[in-house]
Amino acid sequence: MEFIDNTVNDINIAYIGGGSKNWTLKLMADLACESSLSGTVKLYDIDFDSASLNESIGNSLCSREDVKGKWKYKAVRNIEEALDGADFVIISILPGTLVDMISDVHVPEKYGIYQSVGDTTGPGGIMRALRAIPIFAGFAQKIKEHCPAAWVINLSNPMALCVRTLYKVFPNIKAFGCCHEVYSVKVLLSDMLYELKGINDVPANKIKVNVSGINHFTWIDKASYNEIDLMPLFEEFTEKYYDEGYIDSFNRALDPEQAEYFRCANRVKFDLFRKYKLIAAAGDRHLAEFMPPLYLKNPQTQTVALWKFALTPVSFRLKQHYQKVEKYRKIADGEKSFEISRSTEEIVNQIKALLGLEDIITNVNLPNKGQMQGIQMGAVVETNALFSRNGVQPIVAGKLPMDVHNLIMNHVTNQEIILKAALNRDKELAFKAFMNDPLVNIHENDARKLFDEMLANIKEHLQGWNI
Amino acid sequence: MEFIDNTVNDINIAYIGGGSKNWTLKLMADLACESSLSGTVKLYDIDFDSASLNESIGNSLCSREDVKGKWKYKAVRNIEEALDGADFVIISILPGTLVDMISDVHVPEKYGIYQSVGDTTGPGGIMRALRAIPIFAGFAQKIKEHCPAAWVINLSNPMALCVRTLYKVFPNIKAFGCCHEVYSVKVLLSDMLYELKGINDVPANKIKVNVSGINHFTWIDKASYNEIDLMPLFEEFTEKYYDEGYIDSFNRALDPEQAEYFRCANRVKFDLFRKYKLIAAAGDRHLAEFMPPLYLKNPQTQTVALWKFALTPVSFRLKQHYQKVEKYRKIADGEKSFEISRSTEEIVNQIKALLGLEDIITNVNLPNKGQMQGIQMGAVVETNALFSRNGVQPIVAGKLPMDVHNLIMNHVTNQEIILKAALNRDKELAFKAFMNDPLVNIHENDARKLFDEMLANIKEHLQGWNI
Amino acid sequence: MEFIDNTVNDINIAYIGGGSKNWTLKLMADLACESSLSGTVKLYDIDFDSASLNESIGNSLCSREDVKGKWKYKAVRNIEEALDGADFVIISILPGTLVDMISDVHVPEKYGIYQSVGDTTGPGGIMRALRAIPIFAGFAQKIKEHCPAAWVINLSNPMALCVRTLYKVFPNIKAFGCCHEVYSVKVLLSDMLYELKGINDVPANKIKVNVSGINHFTWIDKASYNEIDLMPLFEEFTEKYYDEGYIDSFNRALDPEQAEYFRCANRVKFDLFRKYKLIAAAGDRHLAEFMPPLYLKNPQTQTVALWKFALTPVSFRLKQHYQKVEKYRKIADGEKSFEISRSTEEIVNQIKALLGLEDIITNVNLPNKGQMQGIQMGAVVETNALFSRNGVQPIVAGKLPMDVHNLIMNHVTNQEIILKAALNRDKELAFKAFMNDPLVNIHENDARKLFDEMLANIKEHLQGWNI
Amino acid sequence: MEFIDNTVNDINIAYIGGGSKNWTLKLMADLACESSLSGTVKLYDIDFDSASLNESIGNSLCSREDVKGKWKYKAVRNIEEALDGADFVIISILPGTLVDMISDVHVPEKYGIYQSVGDTTGPGGIMRALRAIPIFAGFAQKIKEHCPAAWVINLSNPMALCVRTLYKVFPNIKAFGCCHEVYSVKVLLSDMLYELKGINDVPANKIKVNVSGINHFTWIDKASYNEIDLMPLFEEFTEKYYDEGYIDSFNRALDPEQAEYFRCANRVKFDLFRKYKLIAAAGDRHLAEFMPPLYLKNPQTQTVALWKFALTPVSFRLKQHYQKVEKYRKIADGEKSFEISRSTEEIVNQIKALLGLEDIITNVNLPNKGQMQGIQMGAVVETNALFSRNGVQPIVAGKLPMDVHNLIMNHVTNQEIILKAALNRDKELAFKAFMNDPLVNIHENDARKLFDEMLANIKEHLQGWNI
Repeated sequence: MEFIDNTVNDINIAYIGGGSKNWTLKLMADLACESSLSGTVKLYDIDFDSASLNESIGNSLCSREDVKGKWKYKAVRNIEEALDGADFVIISILPGTLVDMISDVHVPEKYGIYQSVGDTTGPGGIMRALRAIPIFAGFAQKIKEHCPAAWVINLSNPMALCVRTLYKVFPNIKAFGCCHEVYSVKVLLSDMLYELKGINDVPANKIKVNVSGINHFTWIDKASYNEIDLMPLFEEFTEKYYDEGYIDSFNRALDPEQAEYFRCANRVKFDLFRKYKLIAAAGDRHLAEFMPPLYLKNPQTQTVALWKFALTPVSFRLKQHYQKVEKYRKIADGEKSFEISRSTEEIVNQIKALLGLEDIITNVNLPNKGQMQGIQMGAVVETNALFSRNGVQPIVAGKLPMDVHNLIMNHVTNQEIILKAALNRDKELAFKAFMNDPLVNIHENDARKLFDEMLANIKEHLQGWNI
Repeated sequence: MEFIDNTVNDINIAYIGGGSKNWTLKLMADLACESSLSGTVKLYDIDFDSASLNESIGNSLCSREDVKGKWKYKAVRNIEEALDGADFVIISILPGTLVDMISDVHVPEKYGIYQSVGDTTGPGGIMRALRAIPIFAGFAQKIKEHCPAAWVINLSNPMALCVRTLYKVFPNIKAFGCCHEVYSVKVLLSDMLYELKGINDVPANKIKVNVSGINHFTWIDKASYNEIDLMPLFEEFTEKYYDEGYIDSFNRALDPEQAEYFRCANRVKFDLFRKYKLIAAAGDRHLAEFMPPLYLKNPQTQTVALWKFALTPVSFRLKQHYQKVEKYRKIADGEKSFEISRSTEEIVNQIKALLGLEDIITNVNLPNKGQMQGIQMGAVVETNALFSRNGVQPIVAGKLPMDVHNLIMNHVTNQEIILKAALNRDKELAFKAFMNDPLVNIHENDARKLFDEMLANIKEHLQGWNI
Repeated sequence: MEFIDNTVNDINIAYIGGGSKNWTLKLMADLACESSLSGTVKLYDIDFDSASLNESIGNSLCSREDVKGKWKYKAVRNIEEALDGADFVIISILPGTLVDMISDVHVPEKYGIYQSVGDTTGPGGIMRALRAIPIFAGFAQKIKEHCPAAWVINLSNPMALCVRTLYKVFPNIKAFGCCHEVYSVKVLLSDMLYELKGINDVPANKIKVNVSGINHFTWIDKASYNEIDLMPLFEEFTEKYYDEGYIDSFNRALDPEQAEYFRCANRVKFDLFRKYKLIAAAGDRHLAEFMPPLYLKNPQTQTVALWKFALTPVSFRLKQHYQKVEKYRKIADGEKSFEISRSTEEIVNQIKALLGLEDIITNVNLPNKGQMQGIQMGAVVETNALFSRNGVQPIVAGKLPMDVHNLIMNHVTNQEIILKAALNRDKELAFKAFMNDPLVNIHENDARKLFDEMLANIKEHLQGWNI
Repeated sequence: MEFIDNTVNDINIAYIGGGSKNWTLKLMADLACESSLSGTVKLYDIDFDSASLNESIGNSLCSREDVKGKWKYKAVRNIEEALDGADFVIISILPGTLVDMISDVHVPEKYGIYQSVGDTTGPGGIMRALRAIPIFAGFAQKIKEHCPAAWVINLSNPMALCVRTLYKVFPNIKAFGCCHEVYSVKVLLSDMLYELKGINDVPANKIKVNVSGINHFTWIDKASYNEIDLMPLFEEFTEKYYDEGYIDSFNRALDPEQAEYFRCANRVKFDLFRKYKLIAAAGDRHLAEFMPPLYLKNPQTQTVALWKFALTPVSFRLKQHYQKVEKYRKIADGEKSFEISRSTEEIVNQIKALLGLEDIITNVNLPNKGQMQGIQMGAVVETNALFSRNGVQPIVAGKLPMDVHNLIMNHVTNQEIILKAALNRDKELAFKAFMNDPLVNIHENDARKLFDEMLANIKEHLQGWNI
């Protein structure tokens, strides 16, 4: 890398999962909008053609006049080539396929277990973790060998276990995990300021929160905008919209089809606030999955509808996927224009901070080094952290109230069991984790059948297991 | 107290709950069998007449020739009188009444929640704890004022929370809790030695175990008789009797009516051993209540019957109670003789050890000071401890496997929530503890109704609560 | 308080030690330079006349045109009046008198113990702590009663023990301690950038450091300016100036007389860097006192001179004090003008951040809640922290290398002993702390004589002690 | 091994350092006195001839009528042969030679540093540790490969670091360290019972103590004989004999020459009791070395004489060694008879307990797993432990008073530094440990010279170091 007057050139980024149709355009746009950085992004994907397609989209940007950040994109055929010389590694992969995800999400429905997302916790999240952990163990090993000093940014789910695996295999790795769920809640708080106080257009990053917990199950115990304490406001907000729910601007922006499958009216959040006096800082679809089946029981008899959020069927994800493939193809072929604008993702800001250009504070997933009291050291937790030159330091978030702490601890300890089961290929231990999950609220015999069926469905990803 | 050649005279024991029909005869018999101790037992009970009856039974012993330990018994009308000058305090009370216990055990059945005992955990255990905690807070305060240097021995359930409350209110108290469930498992191991090895009549106290966990949910990870490792033997035993179960000598000694309501064939224990490779060290009726409703679901469709243990209806406890009242009355009136023989309870041995007469090692409930790794300091856990002159020191039991540790942690943290709820009279917090309990596996709305009904039933014991 | 746009009016500040000749002008100037804040400062001092004098100086500012922040000053006769309604409490007191300090600093010289400052550690720091702890215990009690929600900013030494005492007596206090020593080291690093890289005029607050330790004995393990890693530069700097030392711009600005008694050429810092590869983040005069007498042995034979720093005699402090008294009088009488300019102190920025106006990160003394690994929770440590609306959250600083950790731990544990000794008025325990201090490197009999003499000298501050 | 009734045959013991002239006769005698055990002892020593000599002494026992335990002894030429198939490994080695020890003990005297023993702490103990750690690292590796399930009993000094090294290299090792210093203090307490109470001939093992700390610097906070609390008695004892000291029966039994170099009158112990109200549980010669040079300063001017203990010159150890060589030779040649009687060492009892024959409780050196609060997990501490079939479980000893805790912590952390320095061959880190030692109370320049000289003297044991 070369530093000249607050700009940095010749940065090398390895993008693992670089054929992605989810993150790639956003990342390209964000890099294109940032004038202080330039360099090369190496795109590695098990689907080389997808990476190639993204390469040609990326390289088309460089000559455009509206592009301030000039980057070269290069699809590579093996991961080692991507990692050699990397300053940053971005990991955004799907562990397995959407077909696996059909098993993750829908097979449990036969036993009355419904999942709104199915990628983090619950039976689906556990199966996904069992697929992801050996993959991430491999990444950690390769990073250790090829670019041990690189900063590694993970975007994949299950977030906590992916990051935990990286540190387990390579303890000196400089890795963290990013997720925009907390950001979305800041958007909700900004909406609230308008609804209750008539304060308009407060940007989400002006909302300050103290957040702690585990990814997709984080909690805000302190929130403010300038001098305004948002916690009592949120109580007022909760009482006002508890029954009907509140569609925030994020949800209002969804098109009708998306809304049908992704919608949330924050009723779960309101209900959790009533219970715990804390703002649960993730979308309702995620939150519901971490609790016992209070919100996810019986979609037939309207439990989910009652709480006004949606289950996302994998068939819809498949449909979206094919639409995205088509969109990327058209952009690559010049049939469709690629409008660049800065997204709300923070990766580019984080990279700038790590390069020494400008410190930022944002929420991030990191091993516990003291930021959360009462959680074991090393467990991956999500709190705010200070990003500065070559460093990410968590901010001490303190201890949550006993009851919420307990809810989190159950998942933290279960994650440790899942990790151990995956690394040791220990089917019985994996089943124990399965049984521990609060959504798996069925008879053990049924649970055993379900577990066996789900495991059989993803067998090809579980090499060395005795299945 | 006066020490002469390995005997101690003028010992003062305060017996709180001294009208008890459960423990009193056993204690009197054990004291009568022990020649090295003598003194006075002050019997305090909210039912003074019961204490008086026990006083006359106790004092009738002194002149008998077969009685080696000479004690004076004295019923007192207030607790202060019992505590003043006490060297030892024994607490054996029923927090509330058997009528309260009908609510504890049977009201949840309306919602499909079955409890085999209902005095430790589950909805019933929680309600009992809410009644017991203020009572024990009062005891701790009185002990602090009247006999701060006395050793306090608790026999009441819910054991862990009773002892926890004593230390919470008076941190320098010298208290511990005794329970014979681990002893019963040693009897089972002795039976096993006969069944598998033909070794006869091994006394339970020759079976050495390393035990850890919380009361009624303790776990043995190491067991031996002389040079024999009992863990692999227990695996063999489990496989041999898994399907049909094994009626141990303790159960074989029950009369048919008792057997109907208290029986256990150790199938739950065998099942837990298969899962965790540890010997769960309590009766199956207790163990089942700490788990999710694997063993307690659907007694109609034979789940309980299948696991071959019994639910104990409170009506049977009431019946037994009246039989005992009658028995005590007859003894007091000389209509029935009082045969004295040493019981398997360890209290008298513990007292001897604390007086410096003879060290012993036995399992006991104490605040965690390091004996269980990974459990918060101060939580009341059950492990072995060394009893010696004026001291009880836990033996480091180490850390249980992750999955069992997790099962225990859920209860430990829930106990802390219950304690806080009870001390602060916080209904919502109590409800959270209720929801956290693995047996409360029902919809929140139903849980709320059940909780409210149960709380209303015991309202008179919850002074200062907003019910 | 009243918030309008980004200004806050009607702020109430209680200034304990408000007759101070050290901090008052700086604080007044800083408040005068800040347009977004206004309100009232109540000056409380055991010397009411001094507070009155400061009141008149302060009130003379309000009408000046160059003053942007308008504040009313009011001397009050008792502390309760100052605290009632306070939003912020600033504590800047001398525990005892400069005459006591003569005993603290110079009596030990009879036994060959030399101290360059004598207000934090060593025999003098211990005596000062014994005087300060009961005073701060009183402050904590009063704050609890009169303004429990106020933010409390301590400037007095011994910093760690003053803040520790506040939290010990009132655990929910919102207190922290500020010290500019780390700032001075940032100035040195800025100088270094010029010397080695020709980079001019880098403001200290653009130097980013990770700092941890205890006040006056903090350590930097990571330092950067933009993309530049300052740690290898400091190694170069150390080697270049190790022998002759380096007079930084802070020291260059001292007048010759000050220089004689306060000077430092950073040789101790260079020597510590050679030993530990960390930048010790305080002035050499402070650092030397925390180590065994490597740097402070034998001033006669030039040890101190060799290391090129000065011992500060209390006689010079007395002289300075009288000069300041004269200066303040002249300003109050209008004989001398009061030039206002923003100091490098951060209090006003901290207040702004706590009011929600603008977050800052700076180093601060706080109880350990996880920011320093391996140090007991609750011990007062100095690390960076995030100041935001109504919150100060430490940033996780991690663990120092074992050898430096050990140096710090000795002082942390000794501070706990001093605290206990002071609160219990336990002379023997205080003597043990005295013996533990690395500067007290003399025979126990001599140490006993010295201790007794020093204690006798400050007897009037030690009410209830058996001296 | 073969278990028949309560006897065990075919036990394999590997004796590392089996040419020892210190422990071998005692071990042979103890094994000979114990009828329940028999088997083979393989003697491995770097001096094969010494091992051979011991072999012939050992094998001469088997046919004697007064010998109840029949053992075969076999000198082996390499350690692997000793370890293969071992059930127990006893390690009793001198790390280096007595010539090295001359450097350890006497070179520091040039700088005014006197050591009474020089094998545990202080400059000599550190040098010995630097020699011992790589040797023990090698043992751990070999044990892992050849007999991972064997119980390993270490007798060598520096005890804590030898055991710490074994666990560092092979975390699953089943090792502990034995030392008789605590036993000697029990003898003193037995003497005290006679002196103050006229109670005669109380055997040491009837004295019960709670002990905690690190080897040679352990502390008793609770001691009793039957019902008698020995702590207040020890206070009386201290005051009675503080000035003149007390020669205990152990010291009385020394011959005049031994007495001159090993004597102790317990004055250091009395002085420590006055300071800390705890009984320091080791000989005064050891205790003095852990403290700052209060007791060891200036032997010329009678400091040591004043405290009435002796420095042990290595020349005397050499003389004793040659006497022992002669004695062993004579026994082997039949010129001298070998009287067997049970020693006070506990190894044979420990072996019996580990085999399941009879549980015992005794003090032992083990990694901290919770037995000492506030000390880091894994540091090797000395407390009581329960020995039972295939297990040694420490007994929770609690936390010592703050001041004593602090004294211990300094050594614990310094031991960790020494370990790291030795394993990494890090000279500078070793020097830091050297400077941290409380006995190294001299100017850094002198300390550096001393350190360099001592290191050079033992250079041949420090392979791979840059000296």
